[in-house]
Amino acid sequence: MTANLFSAEKTRSAVPPVLGSARDVVRPALRAAVDRLDDASRAISAYHLGWTDPNGVPVRGNGGKAVRSALAVVSAQAAGAPVEVGVPGAVAVELVHNFSLVHDDLMDGDTERRHRPTVWALWGSASAILTGDAMLALAQEAVLDSGSPHAVAAGRLIAQTTRRLIHGQFLDVAFEQRDDVALAECVTMAAGKTGALLSASAAIGAVLAGAPAEVVGALAVFGEEIGLAFQLVDDVLGIWGDPAVTGKSVYSDLRARKKSLPITYATTHGGAAGRRLAEWLAGDDDTDLARIAALVDDAGGREWATGEAARHVAAAEQALAAIPPGPRDDLVAIARFIAGREA
Amino acid sequence: MTANLFSAEKTRSAVPPVLGSARDVVRPALRAAVDRLDDASRAISAYHLGWTDPNGVPVRGNGGKAVRSALAVVSAQAAGAPVEVGVPGAVAVELVHNFSLVHDDLMDGDTERRHRPTVWALWGSASAILTGDAMLALAQEAVLDSGSPHAVAAGRLIAQTTRRLIHGQFLDVAFEQRDDVALAECVTMAAGKTGALLSASAAIGAVLAGAPAEVVGALAVFGEEIGLAFQLVDDVLGIWGDPAVTGKSVYSDLRARKKSLPITYATTHGGAAGRRLAEWLAGDDDTDLARIAALVDDAGGREWATGEAARHVAAAEQALAAIPPGPRDDLVAIARFIAGREA
Repeated sequence: MTANLFSAEKTRSAVPPVLGSARDVVRPALRAAVDRLDDASRAISAYHLGWTDPNGVPVRGNGGKAVRSALAVVSAQAAGAPVEVGVPGAVAVELVHNFSLVHDDLMDGDTERRHRPTVWALWGSASAILTGDAMLALAQEAVLDSGSPHAVAAGRLIAQTTRRLIHGQFLDVAFEQRDDVALAECVTMAAGKTGALLSASAAIGAVLAGAPAEVVGALAVFGEEIGLAFQLVDDVLGIWGDPAVTGKSVYSDLRARKKSLPITYATTHGGAAGRRLAEWLAGDDDTDLARIAALVDDAGGREWATGEAARHVAAAEQALAAIPPGPRDDLVAIARFIAGREA
Repeated sequence: MTANLFSAEKTRSAVPPVLGSARDVVRPALRAAVDRLDDASRAISAYHLGWTDPNGVPVRGNGGKAVRSALAVVSAQAAGAPVEVGVPGAVAVELVHNFSLVHDDLMDGDTERRHRPTVWALWGSASAILTGDAMLALAQEAVLDSGSPHAVAAGRLIAQTTRRLIHGQFLDVAFEQRDDVALAECVTMAAGKTGALLSASAAIGAVLAGAPAEVVGALAVFGEEIGLAFQLVDDVLGIWGDPAVTGKSVYSDLRARKKSLPITYATTHGGAAGRRLAEWLAGDDDTDLARIAALVDDAGGREWATGEAARHVAAAEQALAAIPPGPRDDLVAIARFIAGREA
């Protein structure tokens, strides 16, 4: 399974149709929500979302894969409701996702995202802080204005999820200052930064549909598991990914000395190679990153991460036993797509 | 009325009892809410709220006047409900207020607030961004977890208010780069930065109590009016306030070349003195701020601001015609306290 999941041949054409159809149904609602923002937040959000250039001129582009949107609308269908019931949830999770990207780019000092300058790089830190704040407030309005009799539960899920995201980012920031990060801590961080919002995305449509707790719970587990798979794959791509595909520089996570999951596995479980990696991490020599990538490989970091990703995808699929076949097939397709991005 | 409102003799002892009693009833709920935050956000929030020192050691101190808390609980009483109904609203508005302070201090580069180092000055910008974000998410949880059948309306009010705050702050940031700010724009900015949250504070208890629209509307107008009065007084204090009382440096707003309301009135309506003030604003000479303060006075900025503050307090009181006498008296006392802070 691992080999298949990470085969570029197999995955190059594997974008599941549900991503495109969900994006088409969510996009107008997301645009209507963003239109309610103040002038400055609206213009900056439209740029960040890939709808305009920095001068506000509309640009063509698909604006990303909209994985969270797709999860939210399929989530409603999984609870037997029409896609429309999930749309306010989709808008909310997209806004929370983008709020966190705008703030994280500033905190991390990243000047580029998807080959374009980041918000703070163009408009300064105050504008990035304020625009992120506005998106977060708007996310709540999306579900609270939905008219769903279950809007309170959906709003609570959004708020709790946001706090898990923040917890994950706090750990991430703290890890940068530490050289004793344990693997379990690193997994907790990934669960917060990536698992929490994918879990909420997979559950929120069912929440808005008033689904029973066991259905909501199963979808939440599914999302949490694919979130961990997503992060493991992302971390593998951060070391060995093709810059032309990932949009990041080659060996970007090594260059940033990021304590990602495969690296933390390698330093904590990787024997002699892992110890050499740990020594390199504590220094500042960036002359031979290919050798360092090989060291992570020798220490078992890559094999462990790809195996764990496959295990989490399998666990995600198992959680869907009681979900009706149609939505279940879509969710499985999304899970395999996430885990199968090209390395 | 103006003379009385701004008389130090009259106001030195005029802290209305409702502020203390509201703080006592809201504090445990606010602490319980903050206890739900992740370790880092919780520790930083407890410091920011004045409960601990930077090392987490509890400190004595009243933690501020809690004007917003008092408005929220009296708001519930104004709608005929017990104070407890307003408490989740009070927690929410306090959290939104403090979210905005933590982010604003970072954006403005302010290193001190109430004679203590600000959050970003102690823990860095990432911690300030994340802690503010966590407080904003938690504010929603406060009202959505309240069990009130009107929690959705309260959550919407919190979100919309947050976006008005952000709009005001965006205008404030933009005005720093401009030298043609009109008085009306400046009032819009103040309404967003200060009016919006005081309006929501005064309305949210009644919203949670399910009060009729006209009661909620009257309380919202009351809060909006005292918000403008508050900002006008604050701007007067920012120029002529006693540093020992305000906690700011002498002539702090002049030193920062802040386009506050009295200054904007002076430059746009102040004749020759206003023109000289505008010329000074465009330069960088800080040698004689006493002369500049006198110029704002000569241009009518101080008289206009104090008159406007009194006018807004009067309008606020007029909005309370249909509110029952007990809560109305408390609201009037809060309004006069806000407008009567020592200059």
